[in-house]
Amino acid sequence: MIKTPYLLFLGDAPDMLAAKVAIGIRDWRPENAVGQFRMEGCKADLGMTEMTLAEAKEAGAKTLVIGVANRGGVISDAWKSVLIEALNMGYDLASGLHNLLREEADLVAAAEANGCELHDVRVPSVQYPIATGKKRTGKRVLTVGTDCSVGKMYTAMAMDQEMRKRGMKSTFRATGQTGILVHGDGVPLDAVIADFMAGSVEYLTPDNDEDHWDHIEGQGSLFHASYSGVTMALVHGGQPDALILGHEPTREHMRGLPDYQQPALEDLRDVALRLAQVVNPNCKVVGISINTQHMGEDEAMAYLAEVEDRMGLPTTDPIRVGAGKLVDALANI
Amino acid sequence: MIKTPYLLFLGDAPDMLAAKVAIGIRDWRPENAVGQFRMEGCKADLGMTEMTLAEAKEAGAKTLVIGVANRGGVISDAWKSVLIEALNMGYDLASGLHNLLREEADLVAAAEANGCELHDVRVPSVQYPIATGKKRTGKRVLTVGTDCSVGKMYTAMAMDQEMRKRGMKSTFRATGQTGILVHGDGVPLDAVIADFMAGSVEYLTPDNDEDHWDHIEGQGSLFHASYSGVTMALVHGGQPDALILGHEPTREHMRGLPDYQQPALEDLRDVALRLAQVVNPNCKVVGISINTQHMGEDEAMAYLAEVEDRMGLPTTDPIRVGAGKLVDALANI
Repeated sequence: MIKTPYLLFLGDAPDMLAAKVAIGIRDWRPENAVGQFRMEGCKADLGMTEMTLAEAKEAGAKTLVIGVANRGGVISDAWKSVLIEALNMGYDLASGLHNLLREEADLVAAAEANGCELHDVRVPSVQYPIATGKKRTGKRVLTVGTDCSVGKMYTAMAMDQEMRKRGMKSTFRATGQTGILVHGDGVPLDAVIADFMAGSVEYLTPDNDEDHWDHIEGQGSLFHASYSGVTMALVHGGQPDALILGHEPTREHMRGLPDYQQPALEDLRDVALRLAQVVNPNCKVVGISINTQHMGEDEAMAYLAEVEDRMGLPTTDPIRVGAGKLVDALANI
Repeated sequence: MIKTPYLLFLGDAPDMLAAKVAIGIRDWRPENAVGQFRMEGCKADLGMTEMTLAEAKEAGAKTLVIGVANRGGVISDAWKSVLIEALNMGYDLASGLHNLLREEADLVAAAEANGCELHDVRVPSVQYPIATGKKRTGKRVLTVGTDCSVGKMYTAMAMDQEMRKRGMKSTFRATGQTGILVHGDGVPLDAVIADFMAGSVEYLTPDNDEDHWDHIEGQGSLFHASYSGVTMALVHGGQPDALILGHEPTREHMRGLPDYQQPALEDLRDVALRLAQVVNPNCKVVGISINTQHMGEDEAMAYLAEVEDRMGLPTTDPIRVGAGKLVDALANI
């Protein structure tokens, strides 16, 4: 959908955190990017080859991907001049920003003049159906979290990568703007109209070979007051055969909700499984993915062992340790 | 907001189920409607005075309310000619249809030519916030159903009516187009963008007097694969102090989902309460509302007694018997 390879635009990113999208592409689809483009004052650095628009074009780049969050929700004049220059050189643009490329008259004009495409991946480009709940062929796994931003996308990508390494049939299914830009397509679930949420997830994960796995990118949490409805639509639209529990053990409260604590993994397991079994009575919780990025090595390994022992489920950090245990568990279903 | 009284347009409704909006207005705000308008082949009949546009105009009608779902999401030519005639006679139009009056060029032109208003109550007219989950003052009750269309709106309206009869502080909070058309305002929850669903419910049910009850109109079902995400947003955004379980015992399968059965009331109780307690640990399931419209009197009364005994909760049909038992239970919280 979005033409590859990309040149990754880092703009004047104030820090690495702002470059989440570009980092995701570098880590999971490095073959899709020829290099990085940084403006003066840029504090993010992917460690990729530094390229001008002309050099990247020469190297085959088709799309300039905005790999960075912008400041104050405004596409600055400094960005604009780079983006327009790129369009004039024949690049498509792709962005997951809240404010849309298609709402910037000068970008639209330059895209039209040059026959280029503007991809705003935050906005649905499809009229999704109402979910039918009909049983689909193929297998699906969904990571559900104790909170938002606990590593659900990375877990799905790591399991997909591990399966493909093993020669298994496997597809990552993106449900958020970062995932969509990394993978090239998907459903921007948090921007879908309420009635069509579950239908959009069914649309994203259609019938497939019996031995094919969809790794559905999780969103929010069933225990997060702001976004639980989105998570519920993933559970019922995704019709998972397997659930992975996702957790980040160093949080002091639910993300954005100072009055709320993360649930215990036991509670998440029981609630998520009960709800998933509404659409797939055979669904199982098969493993646990812990995000240990804020723990030291010894502390992390001890924590993984403790959880694995307590919960009786394969437990890993797919980034620190690898997703092998989770894929082993899925392969046994 | 919408000018009263109404003439209720039933179009060519294939059955009474399609006339849900008109039935709601007839049952809860009969003083707001002068009569009904039926086209050839209409299979719905409210038992109200049959009127032409001219007769209703004579009787004082200000707004033609589309009280019926349309087929295939298209406003047919047959409907169009009536709607345009109504605009030419000075009627406003109000509709809860998915496809909007304001997107039909001929209706917009006729409305402008005649200085009439087009009310599309399905579309949010507010930029809702992200939910915060913060504890609010006042009391809230939500009816959660074993299925869609089991009488959740009627239950809320009946409890509100009964509380106001008793001199209690009480407000019906509409979350669907029927409720909005009947009550005059509310949040069209199924049309809200996913990320803002729970926030829109918080917006709808703000801080209030400690002895004031919000009766939040339920939507969908936690067990309905198509719409469970919407229901989840009501549970977490609504922050209910009390849940009523809603059930229609004669359904052969979940509405629109031939492969799915309704859950047992015990399952609904356990799942809904667990989820509600995420945002309000003191939430209780206080009663059961059974829709016995498809049962005979003896069968209905026996069923109510059986459920009350089995579940150990006050059980009634708020339409057949009255909402008194449920209000008694709420008053004791």
